[in-house]
Amino acid sequence: MTKPGFSFDVEQRLESGLGRAGVIHTPHGDIQTPAFTPVGTKATVKAVLPETMRELGAQVILANAYHLYLQPGADIVDEAGGLAAFMGWHGPTITDSGGFQVLSLGVGFKKILAMDAKSVRSDDVIAAGKDRLAHVDDDGVTFKSHLDGSMHRFTPEVSMQVQHQIGADIMFAFDECTTLLNTREYQERSVARTQAWAERCVAEHVRQTAARSHRPYQALFAVVQGAQYEDLRRQSARDLAALDVDGFGIGGALEKDRLGTIVRWVCEELPDDRPRHLLGIGEVSDIFAAVENGADTFDCVAPSRNARNGTVYHPVKGFHLTNGGYRRDFNPIDDTCDCYTCTHYTRAYVHHLLKAKEMLASTLATIHNERYIVRLLDRIRASIVAGHFTDLRDDVLNRDR
Amino acid sequence: MTKPGFSFDVEQRLESGLGRAGVIHTPHGDIQTPAFTPVGTKATVKAVLPETMRELGAQVILANAYHLYLQPGADIVDEAGGLAAFMGWHGPTITDSGGFQVLSLGVGFKKILAMDAKSVRSDDVIAAGKDRLAHVDDDGVTFKSHLDGSMHRFTPEVSMQVQHQIGADIMFAFDECTTLLNTREYQERSVARTQAWAERCVAEHVRQTAARSHRPYQALFAVVQGAQYEDLRRQSARDLAALDVDGFGIGGALEKDRLGTIVRWVCEELPDDRPRHLLGIGEVSDIFAAVENGADTFDCVAPSRNARNGTVYHPVKGFHLTNGGYRRDFNPIDDTCDCYTCTHYTRAYVHHLLKAKEMLASTLATIHNERYIVRLLDRIRASIVAGHFTDLRDDVLNRDR
Repeated sequence: MTKPGFSFDVEQRLESGLGRAGVIHTPHGDIQTPAFTPVGTKATVKAVLPETMRELGAQVILANAYHLYLQPGADIVDEAGGLAAFMGWHGPTITDSGGFQVLSLGVGFKKILAMDAKSVRSDDVIAAGKDRLAHVDDDGVTFKSHLDGSMHRFTPEVSMQVQHQIGADIMFAFDECTTLLNTREYQERSVARTQAWAERCVAEHVRQTAARSHRPYQALFAVVQGAQYEDLRRQSARDLAALDVDGFGIGGALEKDRLGTIVRWVCEELPDDRPRHLLGIGEVSDIFAAVENGADTFDCVAPSRNARNGTVYHPVKGFHLTNGGYRRDFNPIDDTCDCYTCTHYTRAYVHHLLKAKEMLASTLATIHNERYIVRLLDRIRASIVAGHFTDLRDDVLNRDR
Repeated sequence: MTKPGFSFDVEQRLESGLGRAGVIHTPHGDIQTPAFTPVGTKATVKAVLPETMRELGAQVILANAYHLYLQPGADIVDEAGGLAAFMGWHGPTITDSGGFQVLSLGVGFKKILAMDAKSVRSDDVIAAGKDRLAHVDDDGVTFKSHLDGSMHRFTPEVSMQVQHQIGADIMFAFDECTTLLNTREYQERSVARTQAWAERCVAEHVRQTAARSHRPYQALFAVVQGAQYEDLRRQSARDLAALDVDGFGIGGALEKDRLGTIVRWVCEELPDDRPRHLLGIGEVSDIFAAVENGADTFDCVAPSRNARNGTVYHPVKGFHLTNGGYRRDFNPIDDTCDCYTCTHYTRAYVHHLLKAKEMLASTLATIHNERYIVRLLDRIRASIVAGHFTDLRDDVLNRDR
């Protein structure tokens, strides 16, 4: 299969560790890696114009296939000329497969996914299971729309068809996302299922690419699963590496205190010449651990969601801007930040907007948080190129708690 | 009293009618009149950045003294350097006196104000009275905060102090806003009260201006009342014209079908060399009637509020963008509009954002509606200067129903 417009170049590697600086070339432009991917779930980064995202340095936006499939419908995004044209974003885009959302929405699942296995009470697992809106079998997932309760079914083929209609530059193979709480036996079966689904995705991807040759090539990344088990993670990575895919995702349950270790297991098995995207990670310490161990790109809703809740990032310590103490604080959120918000507005003004429940509060806080993470990744990339990654890491992590 | 930085020049008058094109000079910049003033109630035009308001041609923003007094507090706006600095708007600003809000919030009042007297049932008046949160006496108004129920009192002096702290370029004298349903006798007493309050405002304004000489001069406009009564309107205008004020507001109850007539009564009495602001008017036909009869500026929340509800302006007929028919309509909202939204996005995309309850829907629809009205006023001004106002009026009103 010809893949015009998509490729990956490694520019510089870390002396220790698997990390690297590189460039992902896509039909809609380049992504300098390592890079953070802001999330625009429903074809919009909440409260921020695409031009503003570009100005704050975002290189690529990730949208959710599940959400766009339900609303407005993948066919409408297709008719609009694809995701980038539909949302007015003149740059690369990514869609996830929908696998995570069909399994997790309406369930306590997401919370459990991020927990330490030891800290979860069995009550939580039972509570999570009760509310489950989805049923998984070897062929696919049947799920209930969180919007209107209607029943739908995603298979690897449907996910590929939907993602081809949405038209992002990078797509993910349909995978089963498990939690740290599934049994070892279930994880084994699930990894095998994700492998089988990835193979079906590749086959459907080849068909879709041939049928839609009028559209730019869309790259396919296969998603490594295996939860907290080293042998399963390595096996999953090795098996997926044998497929004709353009890159890899690292998905599923990641114990926070072993995140770097798990990324390392996977990246030691993956081919060195294809990009690796760590799904759903955005905390500063996690980003350093992931980059060091070989991840090239990341996406996370946290900068945007935190902003809407009034939590803003700061190099010493992030804080809740809704606290009364900021009522007459006429400093910028972060006086070392070059973002539009920090160079134009005071904490007092954004505090006022938050208290008054004005939409502009979300806009201004999101601009700051997204810029904060994007800029951190720019600095990380520069540190890899210049050969002082560990100095930057130690400097940032000693300040950012 | 010296008034550095504030003046008004008339550039061109209509051959028939009292309308004119002019320029209001303020310490924060000029306002080419006639001009529409977008409303930023709480020191933000909801969902839109100040830069974007500037780009769409807004010349001046009006905020509410009542709202800013309650939150964040006029003292905080003062400490921030005044309204324009606080909200990051590099241009002229206006505050209303708070008179309308203290009397109207929490009451059915606003709705009745806009009604035709003949169409109002007495039940509505009784219902409105029951919920009343404010008590008026000759000295001022005692009212309950709509935020926390706390009791407050505005007098002419307090309103002036608050507005001087907020620091807008144009302020309004504290007035009593009545409805079409008050008795003739009440209207007479109310006009006399508004006159007495305006005189107290002028006195307090002189004191505040002297005490705050480190800040740019803030102009004071007195507000003409008198509801639907010609003799009261003319009397109110004549009496206020005798005061040392910089301009005038036209406030209170305006019967929609006689709006132009009422504005004419007032403007025939007012001096020709000072600007006149019509409070709370924003419909296209009302704007033409008001301009023709001598109003220079207007403010209204309608373009923004309509936008947030999904109602967008269009030269033939405005429409509800939430209707399902726009789901796959890939045209701009208005293909004759030069706004950011119409030049970058489709109806289908904004429809999707509205259905998905995404904040960007409000941003994009507001940009269009505000631009629509701002641009209409630009065209009206150009038509006055070029001597074909009535042609433009007939052309626009025959299309815009």
